[in-house]
Amino acid sequence: MAPPTTDFKNDPYSWDGLTGWKSYRALRPFRGMYWDVRRRAPWYWSDISEGFTYRVFAGTVRIFFVNILPALAFQLDMTRRTDGYFGINEALFSSALAALVFSTLSCQPLTIVGITGLISLFNYTVYDIAVAQGIRELYPQLIAWVSIWAAITHWLTSICNWCDYMRYITDFSSNAFGMYVSIIYMIKGVEELVAQFSEGGPNLAGGYLSVVIALCYWFTVYYLEVMGATIYFRPWTRKILSDFAYPIATIFWTGFSHIPGRIKAAELLRVPHTPAFHPTVDRSWLVDFWNLPVKWIFVALPMGILLTLLFYYDHNVSSLTAQAKNFPLRKPAGFHWDFFLLGCTCFVGGIVGIPLPNGLVPQAPVHTDSLTDYHDRLVKSKEQDTKTDEDHTVEDEWVLHNKKLVDATYVAEQRVSHFVMALAFVGFMTGPLLVVLHTMPRALLAGVFFVVGWGGIPGFNMTQNLLYCMRENKFVDPGDPRNTLKKWRICYYVFWQALGVVISVAISQTIAAIGFPVIIVALIPLRWVVLPRIFTEHELLVLDAPTADADVVLASMGGRPTLPEVRMAEERRRQRGEEGGEGSGASSEARAEGMRSRDGFKDEEEKEVERERAEERVRQGILPTLRTGHA
Amino acid sequence: MAPPTTDFKNDPYSWDGLTGWKSYRALRPFRGMYWDVRRRAPWYWSDISEGFTYRVFAGTVRIFFVNILPALAFQLDMTRRTDGYFGINEALFSSALAALVFSTLSCQPLTIVGITGLISLFNYTVYDIAVAQGIRELYPQLIAWVSIWAAITHWLTSICNWCDYMRYITDFSSNAFGMYVSIIYMIKGVEELVAQFSEGGPNLAGGYLSVVIALCYWFTVYYLEVMGATIYFRPWTRKILSDFAYPIATIFWTGFSHIPGRIKAAELLRVPHTPAFHPTVDRSWLVDFWNLPVKWIFVALPMGILLTLLFYYDHNVSSLTAQAKNFPLRKPAGFHWDFFLLGCTCFVGGIVGIPLPNGLVPQAPVHTDSLTDYHDRLVKSKEQDTKTDEDHTVEDEWVLHNKKLVDATYVAEQRVSHFVMALAFVGFMTGPLLVVLHTMPRALLAGVFFVVGWGGIPGFNMTQNLLYCMRENKFVDPGDPRNTLKKWRICYYVFWQALGVVISVAISQTIAAIGFPVIIVALIPLRWVVLPRIFTEHELLVLDAPTADADVVLASMGGRPTLPEVRMAEERRRQRGEEGGEGSGASSEARAEGMRSRDGFKDEEEKEVERERAEERVRQGILPTLRTGHA
Repeated sequence: MAPPTTDFKNDPYSWDGLTGWKSYRALRPFRGMYWDVRRRAPWYWSDISEGFTYRVFAGTVRIFFVNILPALAFQLDMTRRTDGYFGINEALFSSALAALVFSTLSCQPLTIVGITGLISLFNYTVYDIAVAQGIRELYPQLIAWVSIWAAITHWLTSICNWCDYMRYITDFSSNAFGMYVSIIYMIKGVEELVAQFSEGGPNLAGGYLSVVIALCYWFTVYYLEVMGATIYFRPWTRKILSDFAYPIATIFWTGFSHIPGRIKAAELLRVPHTPAFHPTVDRSWLVDFWNLPVKWIFVALPMGILLTLLFYYDHNVSSLTAQAKNFPLRKPAGFHWDFFLLGCTCFVGGIVGIPLPNGLVPQAPVHTDSLTDYHDRLVKSKEQDTKTDEDHTVEDEWVLHNKKLVDATYVAEQRVSHFVMALAFVGFMTGPLLVVLHTMPRALLAGVFFVVGWGGIPGFNMTQNLLYCMRENKFVDPGDPRNTLKKWRICYYVFWQALGVVISVAISQTIAAIGFPVIIVALIPLRWVVLPRIFTEHELLVLDAPTADADVVLASMGGRPTLPEVRMAEERRRQRGEEGGEGSGASSEARAEGMRSRDGFKDEEEKEVERERAEERVRQGILPTLRTGHA
Repeated sequence: MAPPTTDFKNDPYSWDGLTGWKSYRALRPFRGMYWDVRRRAPWYWSDISEGFTYRVFAGTVRIFFVNILPALAFQLDMTRRTDGYFGINEALFSSALAALVFSTLSCQPLTIVGITGLISLFNYTVYDIAVAQGIRELYPQLIAWVSIWAAITHWLTSICNWCDYMRYITDFSSNAFGMYVSIIYMIKGVEELVAQFSEGGPNLAGGYLSVVIALCYWFTVYYLEVMGATIYFRPWTRKILSDFAYPIATIFWTGFSHIPGRIKAAELLRVPHTPAFHPTVDRSWLVDFWNLPVKWIFVALPMGILLTLLFYYDHNVSSLTAQAKNFPLRKPAGFHWDFFLLGCTCFVGGIVGIPLPNGLVPQAPVHTDSLTDYHDRLVKSKEQDTKTDEDHTVEDEWVLHNKKLVDATYVAEQRVSHFVMALAFVGFMTGPLLVVLHTMPRALLAGVFFVVGWGGIPGFNMTQNLLYCMRENKFVDPGDPRNTLKKWRICYYVFWQALGVVISVAISQTIAAIGFPVIIVALIPLRWVVLPRIFTEHELLVLDAPTADADVVLASMGGRPTLPEVRMAEERRRQRGEEGGEGSGASSEARAEGMRSRDGFKDEEEKEVERERAEERVRQGILPTLRTGHA
């Protein structure tokens, strides 16, 4: 069956140019969901038939490890902080449920849904509140009602087509959020190691050995994954080493932790061992949510809305980064439909008392990345070696070098990896595989946090921009578009992101943590309303970009939005043109003039030329930032 | 006072072209020493006057840390294995003595003399032999006599001008030796960590915390030193961070090890605390060596000769690498005189019962390196980005990049850093500073072993050649001269080095360790006699090079030697020319023909052209190997 093709650029689902009642999203319910399904359904068969390749197999293994290990760790964290209400079995059940539902029914099977650090944070904050309110024994019913309210608001959101607003997500907010999650992961890693000491009794050896294992695990995975980017060995050897970095490291260090003698004597803590298929505490799977006093049902409502806010941002950003601009995707997205499905898992998860799954943020691009075929490309470079010989400069001849660049050529967009991962989760819920889990030292979980948390940090635009500002000017690449900006403007831009990150991290450590979704979601209007008034069109063009800008992804959200700074600059230009009564030819010059005076460009004329060139490059998607970032 | 200049290329000390009794080195005693002193003496004042700069200060700090920390660690090792005969005070005394003597009297003040892993190995092997022979109580006298014999043979060697043979040292043997020493350092690091467990009693926590500290110390120093090579911050910030990497890391991690709570409770082992200025065992400083039975005095003779062999190679290779080809040196070397001085310290060290100092191999280039001014140079490169667009290849325009290369512009050749280091050692022999040493966890010593041991490994030609062979062909730089060789020939070359390294490492672990100098010295005739018969002139020209090839260094050893493979090839050519009666014009072609048939070159004509070019490049000293090694 030939895959259907559609002109996603002119998708029928759009709100542009509409007026009257037709332009109100809430008044035309189900429109987004309908088009999501209709757009994606023709690809369903190919989602299955294209799933039986080596790449999909490798991707399945990688995503399984990256999903289950943090899930277990978050679970242990939740167990500690909710006095054992949530345990291993709940975590596995939740992950398996989400994976089964989303691998078969979702429009975006690339988005991996599971247990995140934020739901763990949310759950134990609610527990803290319940304890503070003296209704600790009502916690199961309370959290069930929170989930039910969340489910209802999820459904409302997707029916009213409100996922459209995710198209306004640019790297400004998605990278800040990514940074926040990465930091939370690193913190959780440290907390997991600290737990080795506090739960290991007076035996300090286990704790220190855990630190050693966590660090070694981190470096093992890191260097195995880096292997893929080198030019050593044959391409397939490199590929295998980096594809199976997690299983190799996990098996090796689990084995290491069982070496008899001093290592065994350190008595490492291991993943706890529980009977299969039973809730961790003594209860039936169905929570008696109908036994909650009405007063508390209403208290659960705002909490449910906060949870929806969290998932609205977290899950959809996860889908966006799984379908980000660096991946060559062919199959359409479906944000409304998936968010509706997420409502369903919230409902089911709520009434059976498991932690609610949603899109995993740092793991989302990992899945797509592991499904991407990368092609090594030879780039020849000439180096002009200008040596200074005593008094006068001698220009040497050009020296030739070979270099490797990597292109993403094809993404195996399919459901099989996600589905097989779901089956693996179901498998691990059975007795024998629970025993296997039990052999694993908990130090590995800390190691996974470090790997996954650290993994994203070097690539975020915050990091890249800070590093750019720290560089010595003369060694900066001449083609970098940021050369047209003043450094303090770049730092100022980073400051706004850092502000969001710092506030989020800080609030996560307090009982006010339940409110942190508000902070996070506030990044969207901040970018959309405030930033265009602080930064110029040119600055934002260089520093920011939509997180997903492929038409195939944007179609589900009503198409490509006009950036506010572009619209504002356009308006200013029109006004000025009208006032001065000049033609359009002069207006472009006037515009450049206006920008120069406002944002503090360097004043030379050549800078102007440089600026034009830089904009051109950014528009064409040739971003030296991204390309040299890996060098 | 203007620094004297001499034509070192036509130095009066030479044996070339001499015949009759005049050509026998042993028959013209003191000739080398005389010229060594005469050559260097005019520079003495500048050795002092040029020693008061920031660079010298930074170099002093770095070399002090790199010298004292391994010395302490080797000392602890020796203490363990000689039942406490050698202790901290002996180590400090020995290092201080050597540094005072060599900083003031030597011809090569860049060569740092101190306690090495090999003397520690030698000393405890002699102890093992003494125990096996049932003369354990005679060990002090025995090792004193070994030292006395060594002193005598040192003097003989330098008087007879035999240090000349060090000019035959090429990277083949010096890099193999460096690799051997680096491996020994890594092993010692691990042993030091194991000692934390075995000496820490049932408390495993201290051991595991030591592992953590050693690893963190390693990474701290490593990344601080790497900072110097980046393009971040201002040049002087980078310089300070990398110059003071050791003190920063040492102070930080020592402080860390004293944090109250779980870290303090782990009860780390620390450097032992001893009373100042006294021998570790209850004895006077002068060993009563006259009380050794004559039989054992004669047994000591071969041991003394072995020790001289060891020092002959170890000390002189250390001097060679301290004055290696990558440093722009101006001041002349003096191998004979320094080896004579080494005989003196052997004698004094022997009769007072301290471990004998000699040239430190991995630290030798560290000293010169830390005294070198490096100049950042901007290199512009163009990248030809050839993208394949569906069916046809589209050549993009060239993309410009800026890159940093580093040039060594000036070496602060002086005596002050060495002398101040000596004073610091004397200072640390006093009571108050011994207390400071005692605060240091022994884990740091393991960390130092890892830093110093690992430091050299990436740069050795063994590593570089192995990495070259592991690379995927198409990404190898087109200008690399090794491209003209077959890969198995390169591996075969590495095999001979690896053989030497493996045998040396293996023998070091047994009681036969006392014989390992023989193995090491055997690398010189192996390179000089065997290799030219296995490899062609071209292969050796590409793969090997003299370790020090500056005339200023070679003058002390009788000038630049003719490489045997060049001589042999020359002879073959002449023979062939005579046989065929052809002129010299054809002989070059015949030579190329002959080489091609012998060593298995790729047969195309273009390879021939490539080969000529590569040779030309190697001759001019433009070695892509070394330059891209840091990329």
